[in-house]
Formats: sequence, structure tokens, C-alpha cells
Amino acid sequence: MPTVTPAPVFSGVVPPVATPLLLDGTVDHASLERLVDRLIAEGVSGLFALGSTGETAYLTDDQRVEVLGTISRAAAGRVPIIAGAIELTAPRIIEVARRLVAAGAQAVVTTAPLYTLNSAAEVADHFRAIAAAIEVPLWAYDVPVRVHSKLGVDLLIGLGREGVIQGVKDSSGDDVSFRRLVAANAAAGHPLQLLTGHEVVVDAMALAGADGVVPGLANVEAAGYVRLWDAATLGDWETARSEQERVNRLFDIVFQPQGLSGDATGVGAFKAAMHARGLIDHPRMADTVQSLDPVAVERIVGILDELGLLPVASA
Amino acid sequence: MPTVTPAPVFSGVVPPVATPLLLDGTVDHASLERLVDRLIAEGVSGLFALGSTGETAYLTDDQRVEVLGTISRAAAGRVPIIAGAIELTAPRIIEVARRLVAAGAQAVVTTAPLYTLNSAAEVADHFRAIAAAIEVPLWAYDVPVRVHSKLGVDLLIGLGREGVIQGVKDSSGDDVSFRRLVAANAAAGHPLQLLTGHEVVVDAMALAGADGVVPGLANVEAAGYVRLWDAATLGDWETARSEQERVNRLFDIVFQPQGLSGDATGVGAFKAAMHARGLIDHPRMADTVQSLDPVAVERIVGILDELGLLPVASA
Amino acid sequence: MPTVTPAPVFSGVVPPVATPLLLDGTVDHASLERLVDRLIAEGVSGLFALGSTGETAYLTDDQRVEVLGTISRAAAGRVPIIAGAIELTAPRIIEVARRLVAAGAQAVVTTAPLYTLNSAAEVADHFRAIAAAIEVPLWAYDVPVRVHSKLGVDLLIGLGREGVIQGVKDSSGDDVSFRRLVAANAAAGHPLQLLTGHEVVVDAMALAGADGVVPGLANVEAAGYVRLWDAATLGDWETARSEQERVNRLFDIVFQPQGLSGDATGVGAFKAAMHARGLIDHPRMADTVQSLDPVAVERIVGILDELGLLPVASA
Amino acid sequence: MPTVTPAPVFSGVVPPVATPLLLDGTVDHASLERLVDRLIAEGVSGLFALGSTGETAYLTDDQRVEVLGTISRAAAGRVPIIAGAIELTAPRIIEVARRLVAAGAQAVVTTAPLYTLNSAAEVADHFRAIAAAIEVPLWAYDVPVRVHSKLGVDLLIGLGREGVIQGVKDSSGDDVSFRRLVAANAAAGHPLQLLTGHEVVVDAMALAGADGVVPGLANVEAAGYVRLWDAATLGDWETARSEQERVNRLFDIVFQPQGLSGDATGVGAFKAAMHARGLIDHPRMADTVQSLDPVAVERIVGILDELGLLPVASA
Repeated sequence: MPTVTPAPVFSGVVPPVATPLLLDGTVDHASLERLVDRLIAEGVSGLFALGSTGETAYLTDDQRVEVLGTISRAAAGRVPIIAGAIELTAPRIIEVARRLVAAGAQAVVTTAPLYTLNSAAEVADHFRAIAAAIEVPLWAYDVPVRVHSKLGVDLLIGLGREGVIQGVKDSSGDDVSFRRLVAANAAAGHPLQLLTGHEVVVDAMALAGADGVVPGLANVEAAGYVRLWDAATLGDWETARSEQERVNRLFDIVFQPQGLSGDATGVGAFKAAMHARGLIDHPRMADTVQSLDPVAVERIVGILDELGLLPVASA
Repeated sequence: MPTVTPAPVFSGVVPPVATPLLLDGTVDHASLERLVDRLIAEGVSGLFALGSTGETAYLTDDQRVEVLGTISRAAAGRVPIIAGAIELTAPRIIEVARRLVAAGAQAVVTTAPLYTLNSAAEVADHFRAIAAAIEVPLWAYDVPVRVHSKLGVDLLIGLGREGVIQGVKDSSGDDVSFRRLVAANAAAGHPLQLLTGHEVVVDAMALAGADGVVPGLANVEAAGYVRLWDAATLGDWETARSEQERVNRLFDIVFQPQGLSGDATGVGAFKAAMHARGLIDHPRMADTVQSLDPVAVERIVGILDELGLLPVASA
Repeated sequence: MPTVTPAPVFSGVVPPVATPLLLDGTVDHASLERLVDRLIAEGVSGLFALGSTGETAYLTDDQRVEVLGTISRAAAGRVPIIAGAIELTAPRIIEVARRLVAAGAQAVVTTAPLYTLNSAAEVADHFRAIAAAIEVPLWAYDVPVRVHSKLGVDLLIGLGREGVIQGVKDSSGDDVSFRRLVAANAAAGHPLQLLTGHEVVVDAMALAGADGVVPGLANVEAAGYVRLWDAATLGDWETARSEQERVNRLFDIVFQPQGLSGDATGVGAFKAAMHARGLIDHPRMADTVQSLDPVAVERIVGILDELGLLPVASA
Repeated sequence: MPTVTPAPVFSGVVPPVATPLLLDGTVDHASLERLVDRLIAEGVSGLFALGSTGETAYLTDDQRVEVLGTISRAAAGRVPIIAGAIELTAPRIIEVARRLVAAGAQAVVTTAPLYTLNSAAEVADHFRAIAAAIEVPLWAYDVPVRVHSKLGVDLLIGLGREGVIQGVKDSSGDDVSFRRLVAANAAAGHPLQLLTGHEVVVDAMALAGADGVVPGLANVEAAGYVRLWDAATLGDWETARSEQERVNRLFDIVFQPQGLSGDATGVGAFKAAMHARGLIDHPRMADTVQSLDPVAVERIVGILDELGLLPVASA
């Protein structure tokens, strides 16, 4: 008689795990293990592997499997893992998703198709095809700045009611739409878990009804988000706001690099800060993404210092 | 010795006043007066005349002056009035702004230039030129869905520090940027009043630090927003959220029309509901904007009924 | 018995007339007269007054009327004049259009509404309302980079068949759509005159079936476009291409300014070159538009020199 | 002593080969062979495998290799083959590109990165990394409607001068930019072959200086494009235009489906017409792409009939 494993619940603070790299550009498994340990130690309730912050778009499928394997081993079942399967279309997503599930992912998250020109009905079929082909829950990732289209409220709620998707990571930057999604989800009996991807408005989105947050900045420090979320859960909104404002000061690190691309700036600032805190061995970015200059790094270190985040006490 | 009039403060609930029209398309001054009276009776703290909800883009300058005059007379000094001066560029904005000030506007709000192709430096000079030419405080209106560009945080804070603008109406739908604006404004000593234009996230934006809201939906019912804002001011966030969720159900009226334009749908739903509640005599839209069909109106009436907003007790 | 004036035909080279300004920012009527004279002397077949190149968005209505009056007087009936009535919506466009017609415009051109959120049906009604209110032919101006929406082929052909519009100035930069418009117009019996606004592809668009061109660069030198168009009319496509390539070298002047806005760069380069050739007294731009730096001006002069366009022989 | 194989030249008519599918969604190799034979018989000068028209985004890498293998075997060296390697980033593109080269591709074409947020400098490094890792010439594919960014003239000419890319397929729909690219390429000594992807303006783009065209419509009938291109090569522009207008009538097939996505409409119309002409066995689209309804198919057949393209004479 088979053991039925209940589907994992992703809620609260579920950081997108960065992918530390060695100087030669290969995955730095030692730093990655340390990072996972530290995130769990700081109280996160799940891990979002191979998202945008994890530079997953720049990794081959073999590297993605490697990364997922290390995260899975390091987590050792302490928290559930959801993995991004970012590819062009359903058949290609299914290929990589299956490999990630085999490597330990307990849920898979993906976007609408990339590169193609599809209708909403086709996007729905895309999610249906993927869900039908994998053994774990599927999540939808709404990130218009990268996918160049928005997943509509009706589409998402419909897929939730059908059981096609279990949740949504909303990085749309559209709080009005997110609020409508929360309301429609409540009216439908809450078929979806709704996580916001915007780390600077977690208090407000929690008040609005979010089930959790996927904060890239938690790679630098997760404890603040855990305190923030705990306060929100208790209805202590003033504390939640106060914690939010503290981490928002930390988030200013992403505005220090000048003249670089979005990927170089965002993940670059996270990696520079993680490196300065001793959390990873190298701040190396994926190939073809430019590095921060020393001035930007110095400013980032200054912000860490101001917040008492330097140096990390030797563990 | 001249009397120095202190600049009016716009904060709390400052609804954008709709412009009721007679069947022939001219301004319905009687309904407009009644509307202003009712808004003030429900507790709003200011009036935003001639904004997008006021269909100002469809009015001639003479009509705008007419509308402002009636709003001003009806308000009778009970609350301050800020008027939209929506035109292509500074010299044209200045012309209409001066007429609106003469008709009773105590502040003027405008956007970046329309139609032109300008740099941020030129947009800053645009606001400087207008501020220098009018006698009342100037506000910036950030509404990318109409202007097709976003006013940056640095630009706005810089203009605030210079004393060029007194406040910002943010209808950008970008809560991450708004949060950064709130933080930068606080760090600069709060030179700007920051009002959100998004009526469905007022609780969250209040928690984030907004100074007020410009809710188009208040034309249908303002009392809920007043209760919401009062609760937020007292730090009673659960009540604020509860009031928000109630008015958000009312906001569903704007999703009832199908297949119409943004202007027909949004302002059309407001006018249909105002008419159904007896607040205005006709739901007529400005010329060239399409009317709602009876099915949409019926659905809107249904929502009003569900919320106990029908009929309005005879005044 | 009234004289019936046939509607003017706009075809061939119809340059958008720049608006020379004095150092104090007011209209330089003397330079404007000289410019009109020179354009006609170089063989243009019509004048497009108060378009984007004419900085019309930065002019008050009184200034627009002034400009149109001077162009009309200077043209003295030698070529027909079409005038841009650029404003937000139909009632406002009608006001300025009537003034421009009174000042001598023989046709009026305008865009879809600005700032508003309209459907295609509403945009059609917008053009219908304007056409019904003015006494001269109406043209549609399709310039998505400024209006942020595209006028569809079906919409334009429908308005042409109805007699609402007489022609289209296409500055959409979408040659595929323009080709479809040409084909649909031919199939409908050629109700519309179709002018391209893209001065660097006139040969290709003539081959594709354009009826004419509105080249901003003709303010600097119109003769090349006249030769180009004459060659195309004769089916001498190699000469047309050769003339196109020559004027395209001249068009490189707009790529010399660095770091400025679209308006500062485009019209700025034209005005700098016109000034260097002695065609206008000052290269002054409208207020709030930044000026070219001396390096950019020097480069522009270098291109003029290379093409033998410096100095203009004293007239 | 090794034989030096000269790099293949791609110019003239280089159609993007459609990917016929069997009813179960797997590749229909028999129809594909027939299609390749027919394209070559009609006189095309090269084949563009695995482009957007080839539904490459919906194929797994194994399927892509299968398709390329069949095209290569069917072409049997009669014309050169360039293959699309459409993936997110350089390391992933290199993986599939190498497999396609091993399967017979004599050149590879790819876009800027997908999903990521990169600067122009990073995009240049992206192309450099790919070119360095493959043994055949690399081409850049500029298709903003799918990639959501435009490859700039300076970037492309720079990569051409460096020898990183051998050519560009321009599907930007921006004829002004394409004209500038042609001029800059000529000034640089013609390092790049420039093919337009817009099948409805080939005459105009040939006049403007294009080196060839990649017409998806050639899957339905290639002979017209071959005649068009031959006429343009001889400077017989009237014939070129006449042939263009004939194929443009055929292109109207893509406007017959209503309410479907871009992919369903464009490739769907091609496949429906190919099927109606007996060129492929099934009009089946890739999974998750919707099928045309019978009304659309009937209209498409009507256009084929009007042009005498039904039935194909039994070969």
C-alpha cells in the first residue's frame, strides 16, 4: 500500500535561491549548501530554486539539475522545494521539469510560453499540458517584465479551480491586479496559494491578503523577512511595516550599480552583498552578464555596514 | 497689509469629481452641485476637479472653467479644490491653469508633456515653467497608462525639494515604485504630499505611507473611503482592510461592461451607478465615448443592490 | 452663384514646415516667410503646417494661428496648405481647426485622441465628429510613437469610403501595414491620398504605392526630394534610389546629437542645419526643449559641407 | 591537405521551412521531404530551417535535430541550410546549435537572449560567445515582436566588422531602421548579408538594398518570390512590384482566421493553404496552438482558387 505524501504547502517566506558560481563559471556547490543552510537557519518556510534570482536562464539543463540536487541535499527535507522550469513551451518545459522532479523538486513553477504569440486559451492549454505531464504540483509565475505578457485573473482562477495550478508567484508589479486576484481567489474557496515576488511591499501585500513572499533579497538576509511575516501573521502591522522599512533600506543595494543591465544590477547586487557578508565565496555572475565595478561594491558594503550586517559573525 | 493664505493641504480622501452631463452633452450643473454637496457631506477632505474621471480630456477650456466654477461655488470653501490642467505642453497648460485658478482652483495638477518626445531634464523644466507661471501650488500627476511615460522617483523628489511641486497623484499602478517614492520623500523631510490614485489598495498604500487617496469610485459612495482612511489613520488596519474589501466589491461595477474602451468602462460604470443611486440625472458620457448597454447597467444595479446602496433615501 | 473651389490635392513632396523662433521664443515670421519661399522655389507641391516638425505641440493656439497666417501669406496660393490641429479630443480639435481654417488652411490633419483610452469605434467617431464640424477636408495622422496607438487599415479605409477623411499621413514606421493600406486603398477605388512621413525610404514607399511624402528634412533641402519624387513618378527607380541615398546621407545630421530627447535631436538637427545654411536666423527650439551642444552642431555643419550645402549662395 | 569549404552564401529567396506534423503531433518527415523538394524545384537559393514559421519554439531539441536531418537529406546539398537555434541564452543556444550543425546546418541563426534583462554590451557578448563555440557562420535574427527588444544598427555592424556574425534576418518591421542598416553595412564594406523577413515588401526592400528575403509564404508558393527577386536583380522594378502585388494577394490568407493568436493565424494559414494545395498531408499545428475553423479554411481555399493555385497538378 503506497504512502500518500501530502502536497507541500508553500507560504510565508520562500526565497528564490541564488546560484553561487566558481571563478570558472561552474556551480559553487559548497557555497550553495552554505546558503541553503543559512536560509533555513534564519527561518524560511520553503525554497524557490532556479528562479530569475537563481540565474536559471543562463544555466544549461545539466547545471539546473546539479543545482537542484545540491539544494535538495542541503535542505534535507527541512523545508519544501519548488523549482523553476523556465523554457520556451510546454514540451520543452516538461523535459526539464521531469529532470528537476527526479532531482528533488516537490513542485514546479513556470511562466506562459516565451518567444511565441499565443492567446489566453493557448496559455491555459500550455499550463494544462505541463500539469498533466508531471507528478508534482504546478505553479504559475507571472513576470511580465520578462515574459512580456500578463497572466489574467480569470485565467489563473480558472486554472486553480480546475486543479491545474496550485499557486501563483506574482512578480507583475501590479498591485491592483494582485488585489483582484486575492479577492477572486477568496471567492473561489482559495484554490491558489498567492505569493508576491516584490520584496519591498510585503507588509502591504500581506495586508492585502498574500499568502507569502519570494524575496530575492533574503539571499542577503532572510531573518528580517521572517520577522516581518510573523508580525503580519499576528496582525501586528506596525511591526510588519517597521521591519519592511528596515529591509527596504537594505534593498537600496540594487540601486548602487550604475549603467548596467537589469540582471547585472539586481542579482549582481545580491551576490556582491552575499560575498561581502561571507555567505558565498565569489560574487561571480553567469557568463555574458557584466560585473559590478568597485564603486558599486563599495556602496553596497556601506549599506551593509550601516545596517550592522558586516561582518557576519563566524558561524 | 495683505492676508497670507496658507497653502491648502490635500490629504485623506480627495475624490476626482465626475462631470455630469445633460442629454445634449453640456454640463449638468445642478447634478454637479448635488454631487459636490454629497461628497462633502460624506466627509471627503478635498476635491480633485477635472481629472480623468471628470472626463476633462473631452471638455473645452470654456467647459472646464464652467465645471470648476460650479464645483467651487458648491464647495463654498468647505474643502480645498485642486484642478487638473491637462494639455500638451507648458505654454498650453499655463493658459488653462490660469483660467482655472481664476475660477477657484487652489492648486493645479498636471502630467508630463503629451505627444512630445522629451527627456527627464525637459520634463523637469516643464514642471518648473508651469510652477513659475501660476500663483497656486502645482502637483504632478503620474499616470503612465495615459501619458505613456513614468515620472521617476528622483525627478519627483528633486522637484519637491526645489519647491516646484507640492505633491504627487500616483496612478502608475506600480506599488514598488510608489514605496520607493514614499521612502525617498520621508528621507527628504516630506516635501511632497503623496496621494495614490488606486482606490482598491488604499489600505495597503496607507500602510506603505501614502498621505491620501483620489478614488474615482467615491463618486458612487465616498463614506466607505472616509471610514477606511480614518481607520488607517488610527492604525486600525483590520478595519481598514475590511472597509477596503467592501468598497472593492463595489468596484466590481467597472468589470461589468464588456467589449468597451477603458474610458467607456471606467467612467461609464461610475456614471451608471451614480445615476442608479439618484446622484446625477443622466449617465451620459462625453461625446464619442460609447454608452453602456442595458445588460451592463443591470449588473451594476445588482451590485449596488447587494451592497444596500439602492435606492438612495430621498434627500 | 457661388464659386465651387475644388478640394486641394496633396501629393508628391509636402514638407512639414518648421517654425523658426526668435531668441525670446516668439515666432520669427521673417525667417518663416523666407523658409516658405525657398520650399516653394525648390519645387514642393504643398505645405504641411503645424506638424511635429513645426513644434506645434509647444505652441499656444494664438501662436499656431500666427504661424498659419504667415505661411498662408507667404505661400500666396502657389501651393495648398494642410495644417495640423493637434489637441486631446474632438471638441478641442474642432476649436483650433476652425481657427486654422479661418487663417488659411485648406485641409486639416489630426491624430486619434490623446490621453484618453478609446476603442477603434470611438476613434472612428472622433474623426467623424471633426469632419462634420469643419469646412475643409480632414486627414488622419498615424504616428504611434507620439499617440501610442496605431490607426488600423480597416478603420482608415472605412473612413475614406465614408468620405470622412481625404488622406493619411503615415508616420507609423510600419512598412508592412503601409503596404496593406496601399493595397486596400487601391481595392476601394483610391478614396485616400497616402503620404509617408518617413523621409529615408521614399523611393521604396513610392515603389510600394505612396502618393507622396512629408519629409522633415526638406526644411534643410527640398530639391533632392523633388528630384527623387520626379524620378519615381517616371519609373526611374535607379535615379530615385540614388537621390534617396544622397538625402539619407544628409539625414545623418539627426544622429549627431548625443544624449538628448527625440524632439531636441530631430527638430534640433533640422534647425541647426537650416541656421548653418542661412535659411533661418536662429536655431532656437521651443521652450523646455534642450539645445544642441557645439560639438553636435559642428558635426552637422561637417555633413552639410561634405554635401556641398554650405554656404547657401546669397539669394 | 584539408579541403577548405567556402562559407555558404545566403541571399535571394531563402524560405523559412514549415514543419509538417502527423495527426499525433510528431514530425511528418514524408511531407517535409516533399516540401523541401518543391521549394528547391521552385528555385529558392537556400533554406531557413527551424525558424518561427517552422514552429521551432514548440519542438524539443530531439525533434529539432530530426527536422534538420530530414531537411538536410532532402536538400542533398542543392542549396545551403541555415538553422534557427532558438533558446534562452548562450550556453543553451550553443548546446542545440552544435547538434544542429552535426545534423547538417551550414549556418546558425539566433536572437538576443530571451527572458533575461540584458544591456547592449551583454547582447554583443552573447553573440560573441555563441560564434566562438560553433564551427559555422552565425546570423542574428532581429524579431522584436517575439524577443521584445530591437537589435541596434551599431551593434549589428560592429558584430559584422568583428566577424562575429555573417548576416541578419530582419523581421523588425521597421523599414527606417533597416534602411540605416543597409547604408551602414555598405559604408563598412558589406560585412553582413541582410535578409528581410517581411514577405509583403520584398520589392521595396530590394530597392532599398536588401540581399534577400525569408518569406514564410513561400511554403505555399515560392515561384512568385523567385520571379520577384530575379526581376529586382535585373533592375526591372515594375515587374518586381507586379509580382509583389500578386503574392500579397496570396498573403491575404493570414487575415482570414478571426479571434486566434498570432501563431495560430500566421502559421495556421500557411499550413491550411499548403494542405489545400496538397503540399503536406495534414494542416496540424503544434500542440497548444489552436486550429483554424472551417470558415477560415474555406476563405483561404477561395483565395488559392482565385489565384489559380488549386489544385496543384499531380506531380
